[in-house]
Amino acid sequence: MEYRKTKDQENYEDASQKDIESLRWTPLSGVVTNSMPSSVGGSNKSSWKLKSIVTLALTLLTSSQAILIVWSKRAGKYEYSVTTANFSVEALKCALSLSALARIWKSQGVTEDNKLSTSFDEVSVYPIPAILYLIKNLLQYYIFAYVDAPAYQILKNLNIISTGVLYRIILKKKLSEIQWAAFILLCAGCTTAQLNPSSDHVLQTPLPGWVMAIVMALLSGFAGVYTEAIIKKRPSRNINVQNFWLYIFGMVFNLIAICIQDYDEVMNKGFFHGYSFITVCMIVNHALSGIAVSMVMKYADNIVKVYSTSVAMLLTAVVSVFLFGFHLSLAFFLGSTVVSISIYLHSIGKPQPQK
Amino acid sequence: MEYRKTKDQENYEDASQKDIESLRWTPLSGVVTNSMPSSVGGSNKSSWKLKSIVTLALTLLTSSQAILIVWSKRAGKYEYSVTTANFSVEALKCALSLSALARIWKSQGVTEDNKLSTSFDEVSVYPIPAILYLIKNLLQYYIFAYVDAPAYQILKNLNIISTGVLYRIILKKKLSEIQWAAFILLCAGCTTAQLNPSSDHVLQTPLPGWVMAIVMALLSGFAGVYTEAIIKKRPSRNINVQNFWLYIFGMVFNLIAICIQDYDEVMNKGFFHGYSFITVCMIVNHALSGIAVSMVMKYADNIVKVYSTSVAMLLTAVVSVFLFGFHLSLAFFLGSTVVSISIYLHSIGKPQPQK
Repeated sequence: MEYRKTKDQENYEDASQKDIESLRWTPLSGVVTNSMPSSVGGSNKSSWKLKSIVTLALTLLTSSQAILIVWSKRAGKYEYSVTTANFSVEALKCALSLSALARIWKSQGVTEDNKLSTSFDEVSVYPIPAILYLIKNLLQYYIFAYVDAPAYQILKNLNIISTGVLYRIILKKKLSEIQWAAFILLCAGCTTAQLNPSSDHVLQTPLPGWVMAIVMALLSGFAGVYTEAIIKKRPSRNINVQNFWLYIFGMVFNLIAICIQDYDEVMNKGFFHGYSFITVCMIVNHALSGIAVSMVMKYADNIVKVYSTSVAMLLTAVVSVFLFGFHLSLAFFLGSTVVSISIYLHSIGKPQPQK
Repeated sequence: MEYRKTKDQENYEDASQKDIESLRWTPLSGVVTNSMPSSVGGSNKSSWKLKSIVTLALTLLTSSQAILIVWSKRAGKYEYSVTTANFSVEALKCALSLSALARIWKSQGVTEDNKLSTSFDEVSVYPIPAILYLIKNLLQYYIFAYVDAPAYQILKNLNIISTGVLYRIILKKKLSEIQWAAFILLCAGCTTAQLNPSSDHVLQTPLPGWVMAIVMALLSGFAGVYTEAIIKKRPSRNINVQNFWLYIFGMVFNLIAICIQDYDEVMNKGFFHGYSFITVCMIVNHALSGIAVSMVMKYADNIVKVYSTSVAMLLTAVVSVFLFGFHLSLAFFLGSTVVSISIYLHSIGKPQPQK
């Protein structure tokens, strides 16, 4: 599979320049708009800046996501249906993408790149990430027969490795030897930072648990890498249109999940039963994080996404010390050290350009 | 301080070639003799081989050292005086060096490089490592007022960092950026591998405990680096002569330690009171490890020594699974992964030769 065509490649710089301009008028990219210079400088510099800003946004949104989850847990058990919340997240992302597009159409008019209508050829691959996530989420219910929640948290770090491997295979992008070493360190460091006295349970995970964990990691990694492939296939295409179609299918497949898992409950108690202020906060946060992930896929890549969410995990722990009086363990400091060095090695270990 | 003179540097290749030849006849270097090819090949290749063999010997001796300690602990508490055991180790190393020299004199005659007599200029620096170790060992008794034994084991990993820093400052040898990153990873990985549920105590170490731990790490690192400087100052000098003088001062300062700490006990109960078969095994093992350390200093360096003893620590844990039915923790696997990548990065991250 070769997603990035040479023609598109050539247009990339111009396209991203155009996208930056269009982004300045979207309500979705508040973070981006505020920090953009009034006159966009050299393409390389602005592309680097855009990359940094979306990465920072993703990191902050992801870490506040985890804090909201802790907060909601403290406030009591989940009263609402998780599937309807997931659907609401997709619907909100869809609405935000549409309203961003509406503003762009008003200011720039409808062009080939920002029109909503699409061809079957373009849209046919968009359901795939949504299907993969659906399968992964369904599997999640079965894996808990074999592993407990803390062990599952540990096993989720396999995502890091699977993303790296699939990124290499599917997107055919090269990581240098040092960057591979850094990636394994990132996985080891994140796991170390999450160690607690009961973590050793994970070593007693039975074979079916391991297999499911690996399959889930591959599904999640594949969905992420596939999304990047879809978004980067046509770099000049407006990201909000791409998001709209991704989220439409997200809505469809989450509707299927509601029907499979929570049909009776939703019918009896209503769609928004048990929603509280904090539930709404979490939905808004998830929606913004989701859009930030798309932005990172468009302007950076899956590797940056993985580093960003890993740093978010560490950030969450540090913030939790102040918010909830959590204690940081020695393992956390060691893991953070390893993650920091991993980031350093990733940045200095860029593959040499082939001349 | 500039220890390695240019003239010595030039003679280095020839000298090490000669040393290899002389080693083939020493009883001390059983490992070396057995594995040496009958006709020593290119100087670079044989130097690499010698380096590997002494490193392997150090790794195996150090890991069996730790196993003997576990074995002796299982057999009961230490009944013997630790200071007399340390003295015996130095005395045995001295005797082994002398007997190696005797064989060399018989086969090659007495030369400028293998004669035992020395100048004040040469020998004046030899007591320094022994003094440093003595101070460190005395400090060890006081640090336990502030930290418990498991926390001390964790803090001992500071040695890795101090050795790296002093190696750079005193021996003026360069490590590349990647090698520095690898060195910090080695420290983090070793500490991670040793984590246990009570390790978090170390974070509550009071300030005097931290200061003493850092001072001890600096003393230990300085002693190691200083020994390398002494041994490498005159590369053509026979290592057994250098060892003899190092160990003579080791004996003297351990005698002082006996007088300070165990004078009454030794006078009342006798020097070898409480020695068992396993005590003798430990003394022999310590003596051989000590000689292996000297060999690594002569033919490799302190960095190799630190990596070697770190790998030995991991090896000990794996062997203990089979010998004592120990369980390996998840932290151990994570730490081992980080240490392995550290070794890999150290090997690929060699500084570029300046042309």
